[in-house]
Amino acid sequence: MTPLPEGVLAAVLTPLQADLAPDHGRLRLHCRWLLEHGCDALVVLGTTGEANSFSVEERLDILESLVEGGIPGGVLLAGTGCCAVPDTVRLTRRAVALGLAGVLVLPPFYYKGVSDDGLFAAYAQLIDTVGEGRLRVYLYHFPQLSGVPLTHGLIARLLKAYPDTIVGIKDSAGDLGHMLSLVREFPGLAVFSGADELLLPLLRGGGAGCITGVANVAAPLSAEARRCFVAGDADAADRAHQALSRVRHGITAYPLTAALKAVMAEGWGDDGWRRVRPPLVPLAADDADRLMASLATAGLPFRRAAGPA
Amino acid sequence: MTPLPEGVLAAVLTPLQADLAPDHGRLRLHCRWLLEHGCDALVVLGTTGEANSFSVEERLDILESLVEGGIPGGVLLAGTGCCAVPDTVRLTRRAVALGLAGVLVLPPFYYKGVSDDGLFAAYAQLIDTVGEGRLRVYLYHFPQLSGVPLTHGLIARLLKAYPDTIVGIKDSAGDLGHMLSLVREFPGLAVFSGADELLLPLLRGGGAGCITGVANVAAPLSAEARRCFVAGDADAADRAHQALSRVRHGITAYPLTAALKAVMAEGWGDDGWRRVRPPLVPLAADDADRLMASLATAGLPFRRAAGPA
Repeated sequence: MTPLPEGVLAAVLTPLQADLAPDHGRLRLHCRWLLEHGCDALVVLGTTGEANSFSVEERLDILESLVEGGIPGGVLLAGTGCCAVPDTVRLTRRAVALGLAGVLVLPPFYYKGVSDDGLFAAYAQLIDTVGEGRLRVYLYHFPQLSGVPLTHGLIARLLKAYPDTIVGIKDSAGDLGHMLSLVREFPGLAVFSGADELLLPLLRGGGAGCITGVANVAAPLSAEARRCFVAGDADAADRAHQALSRVRHGITAYPLTAALKAVMAEGWGDDGWRRVRPPLVPLAADDADRLMASLATAGLPFRRAAGPA
Repeated sequence: MTPLPEGVLAAVLTPLQADLAPDHGRLRLHCRWLLEHGCDALVVLGTTGEANSFSVEERLDILESLVEGGIPGGVLLAGTGCCAVPDTVRLTRRAVALGLAGVLVLPPFYYKGVSDDGLFAAYAQLIDTVGEGRLRVYLYHFPQLSGVPLTHGLIARLLKAYPDTIVGIKDSAGDLGHMLSLVREFPGLAVFSGADELLLPLLRGGGAGCITGVANVAAPLSAEARRCFVAGDADAADRAHQALSRVRHGITAYPLTAALKAVMAEGWGDDGWRRVRPPLVPLAADDADRLMASLATAGLPFRRAAGPA
């Protein structure tokens, strides 16, 4: 696997056809647009992408369609963490075979209160069974949804056992202190924030960047904040970051995936984008109107013009 | 599907081979033993059975192996609820085709805080897509593990839309008041307790029985409590129920599936029974010793002799 670029990564939405099957064509278009508009790389089949609402076969098809459709594997990370380790193995094997930069791996998330020994065994079984030196694993810490936090003790054990394989972590817990403690304690680990409003503080603390759903519609703002940070222009970075935070604040007033898909539908002038799989539901029309109004106020600068049309 | 018997149902453990593949032979033996020792019916591939640690293919194989191995479909309920509705559909279709009495269906459980509309859509998509008049669905309320409670409002909507299909619920929340409210509010619904110590109070309140992991090793006690209740011998029912509660108390001091498998290993004299899939871990040897000692004190009456030899 080629090294994944750091910086701004979108947790890519998965557009759906009328029968709720994945829409490979719309997804490829969207991925291309994101790579041309601020994203350094992409994470497909994460939480925002409704990954766990698709069967393993549907997920394999999505990965193949993207790579065959010309999205470079080197800028792709795939979410592959399932409840059943055999499913995680199958998805991860394909991701490696397709030349993806890595996999983002939730712990098995049905059982709660499991031990670090059990979680270590799950990740070890994945890595040992896949058995590929090219494999690069990004851990996925999202206790609010998985119900299974990844402790520092577990991460340390995994890094010790698999120093070349465990290369990063996405921290979606929303706590800057936790992210910075990961940066401090694990110097070689690329730490990505799952929250846009913590991108700049995390970069300033030595983090790698962000992986967020909001980047589906606001990647240019995130990219601007990071560019100014890298260039050493702190004030400009702060200004871009504040704009980003306003957009995020507007969107996260609603259920995230449905809200982002509503913004996509508006931006691309394409109602099909509104579709989500159960148990999610599309955003109600009046909520979508309120959301678009709040985003206009927040200065989301690429409505309408955002579509690939 | 034939009507499922009420009463005492074991949430059947899934024995594993050395490579952690399901052990179909041991599972069939265990199911037969349970049906001969107090179980009115069986639930395979539930939480205790580590269902969510198996791929869909492994779960399909388990169902087929049981029915082909002579376990009557009419006393079998299969857990089929996955995060992805297409997986739930596939498992449920096979369960119907195999003549099982019904399916026990968790809601999609990755996303949290989802709406009743979204959960209704998930169950409706399952039932409509399977499209079989024979289908019988038992809802599975287990908020501690799923993170997704099933509200009374949702249950009422489902019963109204699918009165012949939604026939029961397993309530694993451990709250007798909640179970009794289900009995009161939904007279046609068979309400099963997920907690042994609430079996008798629930039966006395009009419930259908229990579906528990502890029944893997203590079904004779549960059956005795229910038999005495049905015969109108309240004192004898209380005595059997107290013995059952002591056993449960001893077991639930440890992680449930690992503890039950340790008891099985002792009872059957078969160390292979100790195996669990990650993220679970086998019970430590000293914990297993302490557990067996506490069960002897509690009067678990069929240690050693319990095995099918």
